[in-house]
Amino acid sequence: MSRASAHALGAPLVTIIGDGQLARMMHQAGIELGLTTRVLAGAADSSTAQVTPDVVLGDYTNRDHVEEVSRGSDAVTFDHEHVPNEFLEALIAEGINVQPQPKALVNAQDKLVMRKRMREIGAPVPPFMEITSMDEIREFFDITGGNVCLKTRRGGYDGKGVWFPATADDAAELVADLLEQGLPLMAEKKVQLVRELSAMVARTPSGEVRTWPVVESVQEDGICVEAVAPAPDTSASILTAAEELARVVVSELEVTGVLAVELFETVDEAGQPEIIVNELAMRPHNTGHWTQDGCVTSQFEQHLRAVLDRPLGDTSPIGPTTVMANVLGADNDPNMAMRRRMDEVWRRYPNAKIHMYGKEWRPRRKMGHVNMVRTEGQSVDELRTAAREAANYLVTAQWTDGYTG
Amino acid sequence: MSRASAHALGAPLVTIIGDGQLARMMHQAGIELGLTTRVLAGAADSSTAQVTPDVVLGDYTNRDHVEEVSRGSDAVTFDHEHVPNEFLEALIAEGINVQPQPKALVNAQDKLVMRKRMREIGAPVPPFMEITSMDEIREFFDITGGNVCLKTRRGGYDGKGVWFPATADDAAELVADLLEQGLPLMAEKKVQLVRELSAMVARTPSGEVRTWPVVESVQEDGICVEAVAPAPDTSASILTAAEELARVVVSELEVTGVLAVELFETVDEAGQPEIIVNELAMRPHNTGHWTQDGCVTSQFEQHLRAVLDRPLGDTSPIGPTTVMANVLGADNDPNMAMRRRMDEVWRRYPNAKIHMYGKEWRPRRKMGHVNMVRTEGQSVDELRTAAREAANYLVTAQWTDGYTG
Repeated sequence: MSRASAHALGAPLVTIIGDGQLARMMHQAGIELGLTTRVLAGAADSSTAQVTPDVVLGDYTNRDHVEEVSRGSDAVTFDHEHVPNEFLEALIAEGINVQPQPKALVNAQDKLVMRKRMREIGAPVPPFMEITSMDEIREFFDITGGNVCLKTRRGGYDGKGVWFPATADDAAELVADLLEQGLPLMAEKKVQLVRELSAMVARTPSGEVRTWPVVESVQEDGICVEAVAPAPDTSASILTAAEELARVVVSELEVTGVLAVELFETVDEAGQPEIIVNELAMRPHNTGHWTQDGCVTSQFEQHLRAVLDRPLGDTSPIGPTTVMANVLGADNDPNMAMRRRMDEVWRRYPNAKIHMYGKEWRPRRKMGHVNMVRTEGQSVDELRTAAREAANYLVTAQWTDGYTG
Repeated sequence: MSRASAHALGAPLVTIIGDGQLARMMHQAGIELGLTTRVLAGAADSSTAQVTPDVVLGDYTNRDHVEEVSRGSDAVTFDHEHVPNEFLEALIAEGINVQPQPKALVNAQDKLVMRKRMREIGAPVPPFMEITSMDEIREFFDITGGNVCLKTRRGGYDGKGVWFPATADDAAELVADLLEQGLPLMAEKKVQLVRELSAMVARTPSGEVRTWPVVESVQEDGICVEAVAPAPDTSASILTAAEELARVVVSELEVTGVLAVELFETVDEAGQPEIIVNELAMRPHNTGHWTQDGCVTSQFEQHLRAVLDRPLGDTSPIGPTTVMANVLGADNDPNMAMRRRMDEVWRRYPNAKIHMYGKEWRPRRKMGHVNMVRTEGQSVDELRTAAREAANYLVTAQWTDGYTG
């Protein structure tokens, strides 16, 4: 590949630590804003490095690499939460503008810290407890009547780092194992899940806040497979409460950039729906991909504007419903070029917006997503089916409904 | 700038000859399609080279440079019409896939060839004549009763290369001058302009065709300043005729990729509205920028899909009206950073979609554009005013309507 790129004179420079699809789509959004992105990437053929010219190859766990890529930026931001906070504190001490800041980020890194903070600000969380011994998990098992969800405090995602032990003995044994591995743990009461919601919001360092419509997020084996915006069949009071909660959380925690508040909708003791906070993510999030084709301002554009402390954009939806379906690597990679699979999807669904990440196949890997906006006369269920057929075809080269063209 | 990018394995590669905003926005659109772009750029800080990693520095009038950048591509396309056709014929002879092909491109390069071809296929053009002498222009001046528009056959754009001589003597003198400079000329009858329209369409090598809604294009001093989609206050029969004409032209000329058919709406001898073809552009076009935020499929995505002979996307509008206003360099560059001007525009219009090209100020230079989709309760005129206020602020740092925030 030839290399002959230079930055535009005077354009704001945003450094993104990370090389995955989120950084890739941030770069894409930054192009039209006339700003410049620089990325710290692990590999030249990573999702982001494929499409952007200013790439520093390095490792986000190496303090020197993080400093090198950050110097001279107007803002430093992330496509994941795994940069050690002490590195970020050092950058800030040097006068570098890091957004979001470590004081906020810690709530997206440590589930116990987050739950304590949520309790402080009055945000709903299930009963939880730090677990440092077998005795404690036995105690918590008793308290919750056996409804225990055990989690590593740090590093879990896409269903990893979460267990539902069936007996107190199982729980105690699991805890002993995990503590032996040096993993800090917490437990919380397993809730009766009605559905998962996600409330997306952005905030600038100056305090401007804008929310997007709340979405339903559908998970399979702990991985998001679909997001529907706005969340269908959900009471208006729950949607309002979720959006308001996102506002409170983003402001109280002084998050900057995009925040995803992942929520469980459950049922309280009186049989009324209620929401509780599950996870926080402080960056563009899978449940916000629909905004690329379904909103005036996408989460990627908004994140860049927010970390640069610039006015936020209109988050109005542009259609009555938008569905995002993830393109998740199937167990086997079908013997048809991805290009041809995309063509078949476009032939069947000319309104399918396919977003690919430039990633090679691996089972269950997020390789892309499909956005579709509901058209006149189409039901929400029909839209959801179409989006999932499209996404599924991209990894299986088969229609599940027998369509033959 | 660091350089550590590699292509995604197996991704289709599109080479774009050209480094302006059109290639920049093609690259942006290609990111989500998972395809790879390579550009032939004149400078490392050109609009496109700023944002894309695979840049070959060179000159499109150098045959070796054009060949070097084209080899190994799945398709070669353009952001302008100025590559010599003999280079392209040589590429095709080597087996390289050039889209659109020279046989179509010549109609976007030579106004006389185009008008003759339009007449052949029954597309409406005004009376015209090749001009190779002072006598011929005097004859044409007589025939048209003095309503003469003199043009260079090649290379004119944005109002350059077009003259309206007031007298036969002026016309003859001008022609003598221009012929002396070696410029091939043509003349056509000046029409009574009602408005300018643009009918955008895309076609694949396999023959799939999709049109977008026809827009009104507003010109000042020969430069497009605004496009309104769909064209307001225009009869349905004219809009239908324009769209159908675009279909005929793209098919008869076997254009591939995006074609802009620039039209004059005029009045026939019976006082009825009619359209005539003004210019053809075989690439994404300024009057199609609105599709980025106003349509399911943008002209940039569609162009890439079309030149790769892949199924075309839905061209439905996503709002009732979309306006595009060009950000044209003012006579003086105001003493306020562009970043701050953008912020002021976003503060006043949170739904303004600003697209910047990474270009430095020059008077009348196209530096960016603003798209706005009409919202509920807003009139088309209010929308147009808002878009033009936004675009104007970006180059003057002033509101023309006295707005003070």
